[in-house]
Amino acid sequence: MQNVAYYNGKISALEEMTVSANDRGVYFGDGVYEATYSVNGVIFALDDHLDRFYNSCRLLKINAEWKREELKEIFYKLVDLCDEKDTCIYWQATRGTAKRAHVFPEDAIANLLVTVRPHSLADTTKRLKLITTPDVRYYLCNIKTLNLIPNVMAAQSAKEAGCNEAVFVRDGYVTECSHCNISILKDGVFKTAPTNELILPGITRAHLVSICKELGIPVLEEPFTVKEMMEADEIIISSSSIHGAAAEEIDGVKVGGRDTETYEKIRLAYKKKLERETKSR
Amino acid sequence: MQNVAYYNGKISALEEMTVSANDRGVYFGDGVYEATYSVNGVIFALDDHLDRFYNSCRLLKINAEWKREELKEIFYKLVDLCDEKDTCIYWQATRGTAKRAHVFPEDAIANLLVTVRPHSLADTTKRLKLITTPDVRYYLCNIKTLNLIPNVMAAQSAKEAGCNEAVFVRDGYVTECSHCNISILKDGVFKTAPTNELILPGITRAHLVSICKELGIPVLEEPFTVKEMMEADEIIISSSSIHGAAAEEIDGVKVGGRDTETYEKIRLAYKKKLERETKSR
Repeated sequence: MQNVAYYNGKISALEEMTVSANDRGVYFGDGVYEATYSVNGVIFALDDHLDRFYNSCRLLKINAEWKREELKEIFYKLVDLCDEKDTCIYWQATRGTAKRAHVFPEDAIANLLVTVRPHSLADTTKRLKLITTPDVRYYLCNIKTLNLIPNVMAAQSAKEAGCNEAVFVRDGYVTECSHCNISILKDGVFKTAPTNELILPGITRAHLVSICKELGIPVLEEPFTVKEMMEADEIIISSSSIHGAAAEEIDGVKVGGRDTETYEKIRLAYKKKLERETKSR
Repeated sequence: MQNVAYYNGKISALEEMTVSANDRGVYFGDGVYEATYSVNGVIFALDDHLDRFYNSCRLLKINAEWKREELKEIFYKLVDLCDEKDTCIYWQATRGTAKRAHVFPEDAIANLLVTVRPHSLADTTKRLKLITTPDVRYYLCNIKTLNLIPNVMAAQSAKEAGCNEAVFVRDGYVTECSHCNISILKDGVFKTAPTNELILPGITRAHLVSICKELGIPVLEEPFTVKEMMEADEIIISSSSIHGAAAEEIDGVKVGGRDTETYEKIRLAYKKKLERETKSR
């Protein structure tokens, strides 16, 4: 199959897959998700994603009763069913299926939807164009939920401006982007917003922090302002999908490109990590 | 049928109804909704709900191409298919069905899900118990969207505290509840938060404002604090489902009950309006 889907035990082509209308994902977006990638059939950073997935479920009190090995088995089965070996693996858990009511259904059994689609790795040598946009989101941004309307609207604004991503700004500070984290390099220091309720604890962000530490690049996990971002030596956008890409323009103003040496060190170290960890299952 | 559902032209029992896994409601909660009631087969305040529905679609740039009369026809068809004549009519529109990506799909055709379920009118003589909870929601509360996790969590907290509703508090001010608006009576004045991005412009709230004006009760659409609420003569919780119900307790403290005369005037005027407007189609 080209695009494969799984829902509570059933497997089909994604285009044919349906979910219950009473799935709480449909009425409330009452669920959490994860997405990662397979390279040559090997899923990258799967345990990191599963850790975050179980934590998101815990924070929303969703009964994630699937064992880690059970989920891995499902994901690999779907990857093997997919025509391509380089894929995007997406999964979401919702609180359950029940008559619509805000309160949790009694004895809810969580629903699991998984999709696997062909996906090529991003070209991280391409520099990105960004816009800034007010961060109107809620204070649950540390949980990877299905409540994504502000992210959808911001991503669309970026697209309509001919850009790749939208940078959220709250009270003058940069939080993250519509579906990426954002960090800066200034005077050789890697600065990135701290993990609190304002940003997602990005897995690629954490990998970049580790890589910087390994490379001897000082890391500051502190909020930074729009002005700091505009004056940074490099601006780095990170996500599982985009890895760590550098920006060349924000709101039509040329930015970054002033410390290509440090940025390249980080970019290549990440590339090596990805290659090393997707060599074999 | 007991519970009736409609999805993009298909009609079935709600329990059997499914929606596409690629419906953007499933991945992003990327849609808006409405709910109202039928009494003796007549849908209450339908045009008010349709006005707000089209406005929500406009604000999220969802292509709601259904004509008003077309929607009314669908709703009444389902009400007639339902075993009961007193029902809850719920409908939601999502941006469309497409491969998962934050940006809007090109030429998206919106999806329409409608459900009709038996529902008896609320007993508004029963006084309610409330809790307060921090308002962690986004700044799009004026749009009736499917991004409802904070509302779900707050409603569940209220239930676990043995209460009926949770009152959201932002920066010391009362905004609204997990699925109701909230207003107070103090010294004969009806005070309710203004309609901005912090609250849903409730249809029952608007009806109560009109009723107060008709009854010669002064109305102040201004933010009020938790202290004002606790010291109010009456606290009124309103929604299409609950109509206008008074509170007797907040966070375990006895409240309200100090101006039953004015409250009863409002309650009975709303009851009369509901009866008058659901006499015949």
